[in-house]
Amino acid sequence: MRIVITGGAGFLGRKLAAALLARGTLTDARGTARTIERITLADVVAAPADDPRVHVVAGDLADPALVDAILAGGADSIFHLAAVVSGEAEANFDLGWRVNVDATRSLLERCRTLAAPPKFVFTSSCAVFGGPLPDPVRDDQALWPQSSYGNQKAICEFLVFDHTRKGFVDGRSLRLPTISVRPGKPNKAASSFASGILREPLNGVEAICPVNRDTRMWLLSPRAVIGNLIAGHEAPAAAFAHTRSVNVPGISIPVEGMIDALRRVAGDAVADRVVWRHDPVIDRIVRTWPVNFDAAFGRSLGMAGDADFDSIIRQYIDDELRPRA
Amino acid sequence: MRIVITGGAGFLGRKLAAALLARGTLTDARGTARTIERITLADVVAAPADDPRVHVVAGDLADPALVDAILAGGADSIFHLAAVVSGEAEANFDLGWRVNVDATRSLLERCRTLAAPPKFVFTSSCAVFGGPLPDPVRDDQALWPQSSYGNQKAICEFLVFDHTRKGFVDGRSLRLPTISVRPGKPNKAASSFASGILREPLNGVEAICPVNRDTRMWLLSPRAVIGNLIAGHEAPAAAFAHTRSVNVPGISIPVEGMIDALRRVAGDAVADRVVWRHDPVIDRIVRTWPVNFDAAFGRSLGMAGDADFDSIIRQYIDDELRPRA
Repeated sequence: MRIVITGGAGFLGRKLAAALLARGTLTDARGTARTIERITLADVVAAPADDPRVHVVAGDLADPALVDAILAGGADSIFHLAAVVSGEAEANFDLGWRVNVDATRSLLERCRTLAAPPKFVFTSSCAVFGGPLPDPVRDDQALWPQSSYGNQKAICEFLVFDHTRKGFVDGRSLRLPTISVRPGKPNKAASSFASGILREPLNGVEAICPVNRDTRMWLLSPRAVIGNLIAGHEAPAAAFAHTRSVNVPGISIPVEGMIDALRRVAGDAVADRVVWRHDPVIDRIVRTWPVNFDAAFGRSLGMAGDADFDSIIRQYIDDELRPRA
Repeated sequence: MRIVITGGAGFLGRKLAAALLARGTLTDARGTARTIERITLADVVAAPADDPRVHVVAGDLADPALVDAILAGGADSIFHLAAVVSGEAEANFDLGWRVNVDATRSLLERCRTLAAPPKFVFTSSCAVFGGPLPDPVRDDQALWPQSSYGNQKAICEFLVFDHTRKGFVDGRSLRLPTISVRPGKPNKAASSFASGILREPLNGVEAICPVNRDTRMWLLSPRAVIGNLIAGHEAPAAAFAHTRSVNVPGISIPVEGMIDALRRVAGDAVADRVVWRHDPVIDRIVRTWPVNFDAAFGRSLGMAGDADFDSIIRQYIDDELRPRA
């Protein structure tokens, strides 16, 4: 089994690679469980590689030559995680379209030249939704994205679906909730604060919360995202019918509920490091996102959200802050 | 007011141009009624031009040089009708993507260089819908297109919306019902029979009906399509909120109801020229299309369907078969 992970140097790509290496097998497009022989991590920067099965390719995914290099040795499964994040796609319109749409299409088109159609797991986003939304959002809700990022992700879902329908790939588009708590630094995603207001205080640093206390979010922990990406990959093609797009389960919680959980898990001194400073640009984007889904189809594929937000904070402490054995 | 119509040599493009020339004015993106000074008809073949206001450009819309030529003299409104039809887009995957998606994007991107954002009326299709659908389909129904044509039209709607949201155009995507009765020859659209089974018998020729008698369709007459395209153009930008996509009103009728109407209007000898010969490829595509909409948003913009199918047949006889004065 030859796996490709785009965005492979990013936080999710590296966690996914580690989980796949530990797991050792995946089910191919014919439904056969196979040993993972190679994982190609493709990204704009070289991903770290500390396993002989890992192969690293660095370059611009919007360059067809890089796509050729990634797929030259064949691929049985592709996890396409690479993207320009929401805030950056909004600020740089052309860059967003080039990376988020053109690179995805280039990758899908190149899949048509492979010996057999690969599985293709695409990370879409709940930013494909916007406008007036019921609570919870159901699986038949129209897509009314209110950002370039959301429009680009929606377009890629239709690309993945049509390439799947034509038999070129066995695609699955997973609409991820906002991931919290991300390790590392803030990024240009409008949702970056949803990790920062927990991560920075836990690391002894003040963090700005740019949205109102009652702003609800739809969240998923890093461990649960990886589990759901693998569940989306492993689901048999027969489990899908008229769509390959899946609303991934998560939990719905207001920002003040996230801070309350931080206070319970880590204490007042940590929770008091959150500074409330409203940013109308961030707030406008975040308020267009849906806050609650039934995610019935995703659950039927074996996907699951976290139990509660306290456990999400404890997971971050366990995975990122405790010294390794 | 400078108007561009792509697909301007086609049946709809020519009817739209004639209606606009007769009307003489349109409302620009600032809401001001203005005299139509020029209509550019762009198509792969040269459109007929018998009015000094009409300017003809022939070439491949997927060629950026042609897009430059079309928009070089400026444009206040663009009606983008050009497309590869459903059956052809299904048979020729690459051609469909190139014309139906790439040309639309190229046109939208070129609009960013105009002196002011033009109105941009895009003809989408009810083929953006598919999968399990309620009766009637409401305006918040998810898009689950089951053909390349439907996926391409859906993608263009998101392109139009995001370019509108960014202020590059004032876009409106109108999801047209199947148009019946089209004059002229059969084409490669899977819906071509929906005109052929009326037009050919009225012209004394047998016609094959490739779908079952009880197959329902969502239909609109040529006159009503033109009226709704103009209504979509004239609607003020303030009438739109979270989407620029509109389900255009039509009527829902089974194929046998269409033939019954033909029998009432034109008699048994004409109606008996319909030959029933099932085509599983056509039937499969047509059965994925929705058959009934509430079209509440479209009606709120002043759009309307035909009164009944008998009047649609009489309209074809009046407009296409009666000798002109």
